[in-house]
Parts: sequence; C-alpha cells; structure tokens
Amino acid sequence: MGSKYKELQRECYEANMELNALGLVIYTFGNVSTVHRQEAIFAIKPSGVPYEELKPEDIVVMDYDNNIVQGSMRPSSDTKTHAFLYKNWGDIGGIAHTHSMYAVAWAQAQKDIPIFGTTHADHLTVDIPCAPPMKDELIKGNYEHNTGIQILDCFKEKELSFNEVEMILIGNHGPFTWGNDAAMAVYNAKVLETVAQMAYLTLQINPNAHRLKDSLIKKHHERKHGENAYYGQ
Amino acid sequence: MGSKYKELQRECYEANMELNALGLVIYTFGNVSTVHRQEAIFAIKPSGVPYEELKPEDIVVMDYDNNIVQGSMRPSSDTKTHAFLYKNWGDIGGIAHTHSMYAVAWAQAQKDIPIFGTTHADHLTVDIPCAPPMKDELIKGNYEHNTGIQILDCFKEKELSFNEVEMILIGNHGPFTWGNDAAMAVYNAKVLETVAQMAYLTLQINPNAHRLKDSLIKKHHERKHGENAYYGQ
Amino acid sequence: MGSKYKELQRECYEANMELNALGLVIYTFGNVSTVHRQEAIFAIKPSGVPYEELKPEDIVVMDYDNNIVQGSMRPSSDTKTHAFLYKNWGDIGGIAHTHSMYAVAWAQAQKDIPIFGTTHADHLTVDIPCAPPMKDELIKGNYEHNTGIQILDCFKEKELSFNEVEMILIGNHGPFTWGNDAAMAVYNAKVLETVAQMAYLTLQINPNAHRLKDSLIKKHHERKHGENAYYGQ
Amino acid sequence: MGSKYKELQRECYEANMELNALGLVIYTFGNVSTVHRQEAIFAIKPSGVPYEELKPEDIVVMDYDNNIVQGSMRPSSDTKTHAFLYKNWGDIGGIAHTHSMYAVAWAQAQKDIPIFGTTHADHLTVDIPCAPPMKDELIKGNYEHNTGIQILDCFKEKELSFNEVEMILIGNHGPFTWGNDAAMAVYNAKVLETVAQMAYLTLQINPNAHRLKDSLIKKHHERKHGENAYYGQ
Repeated sequence: MGSKYKELQRECYEANMELNALGLVIYTFGNVSTVHRQEAIFAIKPSGVPYEELKPEDIVVMDYDNNIVQGSMRPSSDTKTHAFLYKNWGDIGGIAHTHSMYAVAWAQAQKDIPIFGTTHADHLTVDIPCAPPMKDELIKGNYEHNTGIQILDCFKEKELSFNEVEMILIGNHGPFTWGNDAAMAVYNAKVLETVAQMAYLTLQINPNAHRLKDSLIKKHHERKHGENAYYGQ
Repeated sequence: MGSKYKELQRECYEANMELNALGLVIYTFGNVSTVHRQEAIFAIKPSGVPYEELKPEDIVVMDYDNNIVQGSMRPSSDTKTHAFLYKNWGDIGGIAHTHSMYAVAWAQAQKDIPIFGTTHADHLTVDIPCAPPMKDELIKGNYEHNTGIQILDCFKEKELSFNEVEMILIGNHGPFTWGNDAAMAVYNAKVLETVAQMAYLTLQINPNAHRLKDSLIKKHHERKHGENAYYGQ
Repeated sequence: MGSKYKELQRECYEANMELNALGLVIYTFGNVSTVHRQEAIFAIKPSGVPYEELKPEDIVVMDYDNNIVQGSMRPSSDTKTHAFLYKNWGDIGGIAHTHSMYAVAWAQAQKDIPIFGTTHADHLTVDIPCAPPMKDELIKGNYEHNTGIQILDCFKEKELSFNEVEMILIGNHGPFTWGNDAAMAVYNAKVLETVAQMAYLTLQINPNAHRLKDSLIKKHHERKHGENAYYGQ
Repeated sequence: MGSKYKELQRECYEANMELNALGLVIYTFGNVSTVHRQEAIFAIKPSGVPYEELKPEDIVVMDYDNNIVQGSMRPSSDTKTHAFLYKNWGDIGGIAHTHSMYAVAWAQAQKDIPIFGTTHADHLTVDIPCAPPMKDELIKGNYEHNTGIQILDCFKEKELSFNEVEMILIGNHGPFTWGNDAAMAVYNAKVLETVAQMAYLTLQINPNAHRLKDSLIKKHHERKHGENAYYGQ
C-alpha cells in the first residue's frame, strides 16, 4: 500500500514541478492534485511550500472528505475544492489551479474568454466560462468547498460537460483546469493561459473581432477529438 | 536512396527544433516541412509529437498526393496544405506553420498587418496578407487541402507573388511561412512574429500611425533584395 | 563584532542578488537593505555597482543617521530613505527598492493599483497606494530623506499601517517594499510587480472592472494572515 | 599597428555580442561600432552575419570616408550613418543601432517618448526625440549618409546636445544610441528600450499621464550627472 502512495506522490510532485517549469506559477501560487479512483484518495501539494523546496514525500494524500490519509504537512488551502470536484466528477484524474497572468486577468475582468480561433477550438468548442464571484454567505461559510459548488453551478447553468470543457475561471480569483490525469490538467492550464493571451491581444487589435464560426469550431475539434480524428498518433 | 531521405529527415528535424528554440511553438502547435524537388517528395513533422520527444527518424516522407513514402507515424494534420503549396509553387523549398502569439492575434482579428517600418520593409513591400476564413462548404470538405486553395486565392486576389511575399495569415487560425529551404521558412516565421508584435504596439501608441511611405519601402527592400543590394555578404 | 557584520552583509547581498534573479532590476536600478535592530545599524547595496560584480564584502553598513559604520564604498543613493523608514517603523526588518516595469508604469501613471482579485487580497486588503510627487521645496532639499517623509505622510493620510501594507509606489518614480526581513521585502517586490501587471491587463480587458468585494477581500486575507489562518505550514 | 586593430575589433565584437545577450536584437537586426580617434578609424559589425557566427576577426575597420581599412567582409549596411556621426560629433566613442521592440514601436508611431519618470530622468532631461521620416529626394540619394544628416538636423531643430542626449529614434525605422565607448552605447540602447516600454505602459494605464515636473527632472539628473553627483562610486 505504501508503494502505491509513493507512485501517486511522485506523479503529483512531477505535475506540480511542471506547472512551475511552464512559467504558470510564482512562489506558492498554485497546486496540482492527482486521484486514485479505486482507493478513493487523491494526492495534493502541501500548502505554502515553494516549488524549489518541494519533495515527492511532502505530497499529502487525502480522502474525498478532506481527511489526511498520509503526510505530515498541511495540504493546499484549496484542497476542499479539489475534493469536491473529485467526488462529483467521477471521470477526472487530475486538477490544477494557478494564478497565471492572462487567465487571472480575464477572471478579474469577470468575462468569459471568447472563442476566436482554432487554437481554442482544438481544445474546446465554447467560450471558456468565467463563474461569477460567490455570494457573501457562501464566502463566509465553507469557502473552498463552496468554490467547488460554484464551479458545478456554473457548468449546470451554462449546460457544459466537464468531459468536453476542462477549464474554468473563478471570477476575481483565477483558473481551475482538469483532465484524465495530473499531466493533462497541467497541459490544460498552459493551453488556457495561451488562449487567454491570444484572446486579449485579438481584442486589443480589433475590439469588434468575431467569434469563430460554427463550421470551423466543429471541424477543428473533430479533427482532434471526433470519431474520425486524424490528429496525433 | 535511404541516405537521401536521412539527410532530408535531418534537415526537417532541425528546422522543427529551431521553431521550438525560437519560442514560436508550445507543445505540438506547429510543423515544418522541407521538399526534395527532383524526387517530388517532402519531409514533415509527425502529428502530435512533442518537440522534446521528436527524433530525426520520426520525420515522415510524403509525396505531393499525400501518400506516405517513408515513415511509420502519421504526418502532421496540416500535411495536405503543405502538399498543395509544394505542388503549385514550384520554387519554394520549405514551409512552416505555427500558432505564434502575435501572428495568431492578427489572424484572429482578421486584419492584414500594415507595413509600418523598415523592419517590415526589409522583408516584404506590402502589408502581410490575412486570408478570410474559409466558406462553410470548403471547411466541411477536404479542409487542409482547401486551406491551400484559400492561400492561393488570397494571393491571386491581392496580386501577390509567393517569391516576394513569403508569409500569410489564415483568418481565425494562424500563419504559414515559406522560403528557399526549411530554415528560411522558420526564419520568416520569426520575422513575421516580430513584425506582428511591432505593428500591434505601434497602433497601441498611435492608432493613427501612417503606413511607411513608398520611397522608404522601396529603398529598404532594394538594399537587401534589389539588383544592387548591399546588405549581407 | 566583525562576524556579525559579515552575516548581515551576506544576508543583504543575497537579497540583492535575488532581486536580480527575479527579473526585477537591470543594471543598478534597485537596492535592498537589511537591519540589525539591537545594533541600530543596517546593511545596504553600494551605489552604482552592477549585480554581476557585486560581492558580499562590498555591502555598506550604516547607522540610522546615515553615517558609514563599515565599508569603503559609497552606499546606495537611496540610503537616506531606507534610514528614515528604519528609524520611524520599528518593526520592519528589510527594505527593497526597484524600477520594475509594471510597478513603475502605475507610479508614472500616478494611480493606486485597485484590488481586483485574490492574488492581491492574499497579501493586502486595500489598493496599493501611490504617493503623489513631492513638493518642489522638498525636492530641492534633502531629497531622499524627504522621500521617507513622503511615504509616511501618504500612509498617515490614507490611514494605512506599515504592518499590514508592505508596499508603496512613489509617483513618477517607482516602488518601495518592506517586510520582516530583506528576503520578505524582495518577495513583496515580486508580488507587487505581479499584481501590477494583473491589474493592468484586467483594465485593458474590462475598463469597468469592479474592485474585489469586501467579503472576498476579508476571506482571502484571513485564510493567510488571520487568527485562524490555514495557509502554509 | 595590427595589434591596435585587434583590440579595437575585440571591443567592437564584445559590444555586439552584448547587444544580443541583452535581447535587443534577433538575427542580424542591429550593429555596434567603436572608434579610434587618434587613427580616425572605427570598427563595425560586418553586414548580415548572425551573432551566433560572429568572430572578432570578422569585424571590419573603416575610415570616416567609408573606405575599408582592414577586413575582408562587407561592413554593416548602416556604416555610412556611423561614419557621419563620428565625423561630426568629435566626442563620441561608440554607436549602437537596433530594432528593439518598444523603441521601434515608438519610432513607427512617429512620437517622441515623453519623460514620465525618474528612470528616464536619471539618463536624460528631455523627451527622447523621434526624427521625422526622411524626404523622398534624400531617401533616393545617399540614404545611410543622409540618415546621419537627418539625426543632426533633428538635434539642431530641437536644440539638443549629443553629449546630454545619447539616443534618438528615426521615424519608421528604429533607434540609434551612442556614448563614451561602445559598451556605453549598448547600455543606452538597453535603457532606451526599458524607458520606451515604461512610457508605453504608462499611457495605457493613464492616457492623460503628466510629464515629470521640472524640479524632479533636475534633481534626478544632477544626483547622477551633476557637479555634486552622489550616485555611483
């Protein structure tokens, strides 16, 4: 059993370090987790530990009810959001949270990121959603747990599927991304940051830029993710 | 014959790696090809392989009709666009495609990049063209092949020569560049990205900035490319 | 006694080098100091020495009245500002001054940096203050000493506490930051630069962006700095 | 005599490589020269040679009348501008020309860079001048020589001294900077690029930002360059 955790911790550690290597975080402004579905546990970065000092054995193992299964350090302050998403979205394998520059700027602007091009459409077919800031009573309550509720509410209201849309902005806060595993969650964090910067620049050049037309959205997504996908090996 | 492919694969591999080293691509968002005119074949990056993992022997060799001549991997999803251009433009030796930040922003804004200065004029004497998004029936059809048609149509409509203008933006998508060989195509991809950022900043500082006047356009281009050129060795 | 200075000099040296490593300074455009409260002295970067050439033994040791206690080099031209702050703010352990890009842009724009998100609120609960440019008679007088007065006046007028707000912009000049020690002052310089860029981008995307609401400001600050803080180890 | 050239070539080589290391040039988009006043010659980068391939012995030695004194390569295409400035400004020791991003953006916008802060005032007390594009008859003539005339005319019209203002933008082209030696010319190229970016961001944040007031301009310049300067060692 111990060896199973070790592997999980190492996977989580490497995904966290990749977040740092990709320039998506400074200091301790982010965290990645990875889940073990059979055991119903997940591994997550400890709170407030700089990436330069992080070691695989520092990674904390949690259950979905926020109990520490293994680890002597306090888990990320955003742990309850991760737990809530793992509990409710049975398919996802990893989650990443960052304060990356352009994603945060859109979150602070409280705007969905419009789908302007094929870089965006290669990954998702809709605008990247921005959840509105939480209501005051929820903030005062179980804040990080309620952030999870806020994410699910936003997906419900906008009729989005977490399998098709693997990223969200929390208004005034920043992005959460997810995927089949922790590495994919980190990949999506980088894609989101890139698309966020592209959309920002697009509107600076042409404030009346048009969203990508439906036929192109469909084409680019299908060539990568459709039944007859011909992208990749 | 095998050794000839090896050389072609190595040249293509190095041009692809240079694209990455220049900061023009992340993950798998780009591809370079290089052509062998006598053999009527070209070498191109395999689809969806990250640059960190790419090896010279992974490079796929294709004919102009999109048949694999050598290679066990699937070629870039944009291969048909490359094939179409090689078939129609007999002089070009290499093609590069990226999703570089500023070039994509102009493509998403669906605007030609105005010629504002000598950095631009050192390389071409007209605005960098942006082809309009494709018509729906063409998107649904042979999409990447039709992207090639779209490029040729745009050059025809604007009366441009592919020998003089070695770059184009595809509206809502991104840039294609070409040149005498793969290295030159990559060079043009970097020049385009630089000029795209300069033009963006120019309009931010002065929304009424004037295009470069004709005498200066002519002078700078001729000192580099004219009969009496005195730039370079 | 010599060994005590050596340690102080090393601490100051390392904080200065970190400023450089974080990309917050070019050439000699910045300085960090660290204080020894029992001895009522502080160590500061020598003036005009590039970071590439800086050595621990170059660090100058000063008293609060701007007398050199140890060191053969001239101290930073901003030394009197540091001395004034150490004299008046008994609790702070280190001070950093930079000309970092986005912080300077806000200072030159003479605008407070609005609190737009949780990245900001994790560190302070108010807009980052921008002190107005100094009056002419103070500029002509003891300029760097008066910069210290200007900082205190701004905090007094805005009713801010230097324990809670560890950063300020000097109008038309640039930022000063401080903290429990020199490393914390440098950390705050990096946080300020990051938040300054985020706020800049936010207003570019949405000129009518709303400040973070009070409940979220309170929540984020308390989870990191409040009595029941649960951020960090 | 040969050894004197060797030293000059090395100094010129190192200044050119520093231009590259500072991120001010890509490919061959820039050049630095250094002068030997007693011999009335100067050393300059050869034309079109990438920085990665440049060697000290490639540096071309020229007299002020554009004759090659030593070297087998063609000198920079901008050589006549350098020669003209050395001939007319007896005091300067080195000249740098780049196409750095923000300096070019201001040049393409055809705007002087307003003096908004102390980073600017530490180096010069006026707006950074932007010379208007050249008249057509001058462009068609001895273009690079006439660029030198254009620089002198701009300084004359604005009543500037080349000893006090060591930088200029050529409208629609880019910056020239100079100084006591080649290293100082490169330093000024980096300062110009930094100040250009700061001024750009300042106006994005506050389109009505005020120029620095005279008392502050005077103070900052004098503490670094005045009779009683107390900056540096």
